[in-house]
Amino acid sequence: MAKKLRMGMVGGGQGAFIGAIHRYAAALDGQIELMCGAFSSNPQRAIDSGKELGIESNRNYQSFEKMFEEESKLPADQRMDFVAIVTPNHMHYPVAAAALSAGFHVICDKPATLDLAQAKLLKQQVQETGLLFGLTHTYTGYPMVKEARAIVKSGQLGALRKVVVEYTQGWLAQAETEDNKQAVWRTNPETSGLSGCMGDIGSHAANLAEYISGERIEEISAELTTFVPNRMLDDDGVALIHLSNGLKGILHASQVAVGEENNLSIRLYGEKGGLEWHQQEPNTLEVKWLDEPTQIFRTGGNHSPAAAINTRTPMGHPEGYLEAFANIYRHFGDAVHHYKKHGQSDKSSFDYPTIDDGVHGMAIIETLVQSSNSDQKWHKVST
Amino acid sequence: MAKKLRMGMVGGGQGAFIGAIHRYAAALDGQIELMCGAFSSNPQRAIDSGKELGIESNRNYQSFEKMFEEESKLPADQRMDFVAIVTPNHMHYPVAAAALSAGFHVICDKPATLDLAQAKLLKQQVQETGLLFGLTHTYTGYPMVKEARAIVKSGQLGALRKVVVEYTQGWLAQAETEDNKQAVWRTNPETSGLSGCMGDIGSHAANLAEYISGERIEEISAELTTFVPNRMLDDDGVALIHLSNGLKGILHASQVAVGEENNLSIRLYGEKGGLEWHQQEPNTLEVKWLDEPTQIFRTGGNHSPAAAINTRTPMGHPEGYLEAFANIYRHFGDAVHHYKKHGQSDKSSFDYPTIDDGVHGMAIIETLVQSSNSDQKWHKVST
Amino acid sequence: MAKKLRMGMVGGGQGAFIGAIHRYAAALDGQIELMCGAFSSNPQRAIDSGKELGIESNRNYQSFEKMFEEESKLPADQRMDFVAIVTPNHMHYPVAAAALSAGFHVICDKPATLDLAQAKLLKQQVQETGLLFGLTHTYTGYPMVKEARAIVKSGQLGALRKVVVEYTQGWLAQAETEDNKQAVWRTNPETSGLSGCMGDIGSHAANLAEYISGERIEEISAELTTFVPNRMLDDDGVALIHLSNGLKGILHASQVAVGEENNLSIRLYGEKGGLEWHQQEPNTLEVKWLDEPTQIFRTGGNHSPAAAINTRTPMGHPEGYLEAFANIYRHFGDAVHHYKKHGQSDKSSFDYPTIDDGVHGMAIIETLVQSSNSDQKWHKVST
Amino acid sequence: MAKKLRMGMVGGGQGAFIGAIHRYAAALDGQIELMCGAFSSNPQRAIDSGKELGIESNRNYQSFEKMFEEESKLPADQRMDFVAIVTPNHMHYPVAAAALSAGFHVICDKPATLDLAQAKLLKQQVQETGLLFGLTHTYTGYPMVKEARAIVKSGQLGALRKVVVEYTQGWLAQAETEDNKQAVWRTNPETSGLSGCMGDIGSHAANLAEYISGERIEEISAELTTFVPNRMLDDDGVALIHLSNGLKGILHASQVAVGEENNLSIRLYGEKGGLEWHQQEPNTLEVKWLDEPTQIFRTGGNHSPAAAINTRTPMGHPEGYLEAFANIYRHFGDAVHHYKKHGQSDKSSFDYPTIDDGVHGMAIIETLVQSSNSDQKWHKVST
Repeated sequence: MAKKLRMGMVGGGQGAFIGAIHRYAAALDGQIELMCGAFSSNPQRAIDSGKELGIESNRNYQSFEKMFEEESKLPADQRMDFVAIVTPNHMHYPVAAAALSAGFHVICDKPATLDLAQAKLLKQQVQETGLLFGLTHTYTGYPMVKEARAIVKSGQLGALRKVVVEYTQGWLAQAETEDNKQAVWRTNPETSGLSGCMGDIGSHAANLAEYISGERIEEISAELTTFVPNRMLDDDGVALIHLSNGLKGILHASQVAVGEENNLSIRLYGEKGGLEWHQQEPNTLEVKWLDEPTQIFRTGGNHSPAAAINTRTPMGHPEGYLEAFANIYRHFGDAVHHYKKHGQSDKSSFDYPTIDDGVHGMAIIETLVQSSNSDQKWHKVST
Repeated sequence: MAKKLRMGMVGGGQGAFIGAIHRYAAALDGQIELMCGAFSSNPQRAIDSGKELGIESNRNYQSFEKMFEEESKLPADQRMDFVAIVTPNHMHYPVAAAALSAGFHVICDKPATLDLAQAKLLKQQVQETGLLFGLTHTYTGYPMVKEARAIVKSGQLGALRKVVVEYTQGWLAQAETEDNKQAVWRTNPETSGLSGCMGDIGSHAANLAEYISGERIEEISAELTTFVPNRMLDDDGVALIHLSNGLKGILHASQVAVGEENNLSIRLYGEKGGLEWHQQEPNTLEVKWLDEPTQIFRTGGNHSPAAAINTRTPMGHPEGYLEAFANIYRHFGDAVHHYKKHGQSDKSSFDYPTIDDGVHGMAIIETLVQSSNSDQKWHKVST
Repeated sequence: MAKKLRMGMVGGGQGAFIGAIHRYAAALDGQIELMCGAFSSNPQRAIDSGKELGIESNRNYQSFEKMFEEESKLPADQRMDFVAIVTPNHMHYPVAAAALSAGFHVICDKPATLDLAQAKLLKQQVQETGLLFGLTHTYTGYPMVKEARAIVKSGQLGALRKVVVEYTQGWLAQAETEDNKQAVWRTNPETSGLSGCMGDIGSHAANLAEYISGERIEEISAELTTFVPNRMLDDDGVALIHLSNGLKGILHASQVAVGEENNLSIRLYGEKGGLEWHQQEPNTLEVKWLDEPTQIFRTGGNHSPAAAINTRTPMGHPEGYLEAFANIYRHFGDAVHHYKKHGQSDKSSFDYPTIDDGVHGMAIIETLVQSSNSDQKWHKVST
Repeated sequence: MAKKLRMGMVGGGQGAFIGAIHRYAAALDGQIELMCGAFSSNPQRAIDSGKELGIESNRNYQSFEKMFEEESKLPADQRMDFVAIVTPNHMHYPVAAAALSAGFHVICDKPATLDLAQAKLLKQQVQETGLLFGLTHTYTGYPMVKEARAIVKSGQLGALRKVVVEYTQGWLAQAETEDNKQAVWRTNPETSGLSGCMGDIGSHAANLAEYISGERIEEISAELTTFVPNRMLDDDGVALIHLSNGLKGILHASQVAVGEENNLSIRLYGEKGGLEWHQQEPNTLEVKWLDEPTQIFRTGGNHSPAAAINTRTPMGHPEGYLEAFANIYRHFGDAVHHYKKHGQSDKSSFDYPTIDDGVHGMAIIETLVQSSNSDQKWHKVST
């Protein structure tokens, strides 16, 4: 086995949420080491956070610019191999662009950028540098999501007709307060982007539907709503969607669905069969048939290779969110190893979301907002 | 206790489905007796069906016209008290109109009529005759649906924001064959009406959402689809809906959702709480709160009077579809008793769907179809 | 179809529970009519109860003795066809014996009698008279229980190894109070018998395990417990059980399991497959396999004829406790019709529990109590 | 934050199962580093396995004896801090004894030893050395198990009455084959110990019941069974159990329950409330009450500090088996840090299973076997 990869991190300091998640995910397989970081836009908080995380002081940076500059100077066998970007959305693009410019691979929390224009610029830079860009659409890392995709690909369901995907939460049902750092930046267009709820979680739902079905969202008829008074961005949204090859569906996201935790769920129906999966009980996949009893597929069962290689434990030992997240890191890490060995990327061999997903995801968000503001029923997703 | 009520039935002979269901529902409490019937539009099948059902030969009629004529001649203490109409949709109006003209109360399967115009005519006749008209929106008969409505009324959920209601089935995922009598008439506009799936089951979903929320659907943005080639009516449909008082929602129905049985489900979210109910496990109602654990309300628990009077067994003894259906008959029967005693109807005291629900339901169906055929995003439900 | 059967009832008046359940169950199919009754051991309450139920005054009796005497005098086409006994346990035997002596078929709530000696006497009388005796072990009436039994019979599970059956409730977790009539008689040995919890509900669990597996409980190692101070009978019990043909298992019943409603559940494992069923969600049967995904069998699916003939509605229309109970009545009614036509009973053709189940059930209860009082590990069930 | 702890491992090489699990669990928090190992009793396989795991060659040992010898010679800031023992059961004692003798803390897979005598010897050595010994009863690491224990401690359930704990699997339903290394050693008394199923998984169930209830198993009436022909050890077992303070229960384990995966489940009932938890859906804890609706507690909710500190993600982001396992490592790691700082152990402050659990667990296993071989009903657990 190759040596551990060295990871740097931007963001994810004290008070943050997603940074810790990335660190668990990167650590789980024991193949990636967090070597350096610039953990906050506030220099003091950055340093304090790095100390808490046990980062060596000479690699605990006050800013991402400094980090890229200093790491670049290190010998190849000490320098970080890639950077994980876990800042609020508005910083994704500047940090990613700087990292690529400095020659570092990037793995970035979603959405890829603040808007579609940035995403296109970033894609151009990724293409020009030939470096790797991974986007952590975590939920596609679950073994039963891999299995669902494999079942669709096998053709067992027949031609696809209908997909119903939703992602509902209740944590923004009331007005956000200043002390909830997560709520504050996610509801502010300057840090979050054009859309609140749809950008934050609807984007995951859209990605999941596309990943499993293998089809792309092409047309949208949406209504986004801001239920909580004085909130600046949508906290709820529904869209009728048309995907490629005649697949139709519903895309639904809400952050005011009181009592819902993190209810990402999908149902997909073809001519001959259907699938149902719920992220909160992620090790079960219901497989439905025209004239046979529903089957319960379970993580660790005798399923597709795609599911098997993303599974760490035997049946009945529940795998969770961090394992799914770690699968994204594992596949991205494999791609980095490949790059290190071969000096170039190999897009087709590794199963993680890329800048293409990022650009398409931003296009969906912009179309959702555009559609919601229009009296015209259908809007095409620009490409 | 008053003597048993005498019921006549139109439709529901050999090969029918819903007729038997009405008979079970009417019989369960031992307070209604099936005395007479015209069980088919085919005279021979009508007679054969009545014989099978043990109907006395002198009250086993070849046609509904004959039944109304002959029953009218019987003394008051022998004559049927009301007629149950369980024919295909296109016969609802003519039979109901004839029954009312002959002075009989009517309980009718849904939808009320073939189209909105008929529904309005029927409403006029109901008003003019002062007779009772019950519509069997069965699903509102479940104890936990009553409980859900009571919780909403109590204000515990705060102002309502979002409702997600769906009714999905898979039994029409393939082209219907001639020997499936149910499938044939339900997919034919002449017998079924303007809409297939939305008329057949979407109407139940819409009614359920309105019943529990206490709000009315006012605006619709819909897409109806016919997935199965050569089918004449929609077999799937989705609508964004605006209800009164700012409630928004999703109305979803499908008959091509392979593997789904009779999946009528509803979730409703207010400012302070939420509700979730699934018809296939009807004795459980999830009640969700902002900061407290979800509670599991169960049929037979210490709940509202509205739930209690619609419950026949202690907790843990599952009540099913027939019990819910029987609740509609029980309340309609109570209203008939009241009428017999007082010589007039008392709309407000009895909890069963009426012609008002019928008219509104037909208006929703027509708006769904109209919206689906339009490029304009929103259509108002005509009243 | 033959004419309706005429039913008489003993017990089940005001304040009773199970009498109403029997009435619903008998009424559901519209093929049995409650014609007469002696609804209480208190003559005034008997009369009042009958009035409430709409019984004609000349057939509303003050005592069961009077009812049997008077009904015997009526012409065959008016006289009751059978009697339903729904009294507390201690009255089962005297009423059943009197009914058989008067020439009436009997359907009786369980347990058959107060003790094993009575059960044996009753069996002798049933055999001598050739009349029908049905015992309402309700839970065997569910379609998915029929299906489970059919699967076992088919041999698909291989040789059976292990059965785990339980029936847990929480309603007696606190000391019973005088105003809870149900609790009072069920915890009194004079009215309930040797055992409280095991007699009341453990007996159902034992019967269910035997019905599905097709094997008989032969040896028992039990511990019965009275958790609530001053209670006279057990309110909880567990037994290791040995059944015929090498099947082993656990029999568990409790009435102090706080929060449990009516949790009758069974799991059965053979060499090649397993089954799981829960009474509170009775329309689902999990079928498990060595190397294949678990299958979800559902009421109304394409299952065995035994399941099909006990199902009234299509898939997804939940059938409940009353439908299961009605299935016992339906099969008993079929047997009564057969008797009326042929002048004799035909035990093997009709699927309802008989006096044989009653005798065996009483033997199990006595062995459970005997075992619980002994330091010896295993006790044989006397036959 | 302190520097990472250095871990050595004995066992867990190619073809092993539990070793990889320990590695994931140790790595997740990024606070423990696998520095060295003797990964197999076969020297060549040991070396090959270490290479695969990326262990530096100078710390990749051919035998555990060598490892303890060489590591002891290293400077304190390089030497391993503790050893994880993940061999088959029969090697637990010799390896642990050697590690303690060499001055290393030990974390060991369960059961602690091959038999009770060894466990007592080991306990003596732990006491004499003052070193730390952790036992990976993984399932007590789940947040909702912590919550369950906290609820019991709070007294909200009242005095405890009944516990039902089971651990059922189906993977040994057929005769094991030579190529299933896991099955082979677990069914061989020389490598596994006195008991198969009860030793392997019944021991986890017993531990869980004791951990949540806070009571100890004192008396046992058991039947162990070997269902699969020619198997040397039990593959199924049931015991009635008496715990301290009047708590009674059922302990059930099986490895021939076809279709079960890793079904560890517990229900616990007190005078005023009850709890239900299933390991396969570990983020849900049902909390039941006398007269209030059941509440659904969920990982990440506003629960006890004990649950909170064992939770890594927000509500609705499922935590799994590896997170629970990592919690054992986290608490053991905290204890190691404490020892390193203070030069002595502090048993009471850290929440992980110790040698006391190991001794008691072995006593339970021996009593289960003894009881199963006896005609006497009850056997006391020797202490």
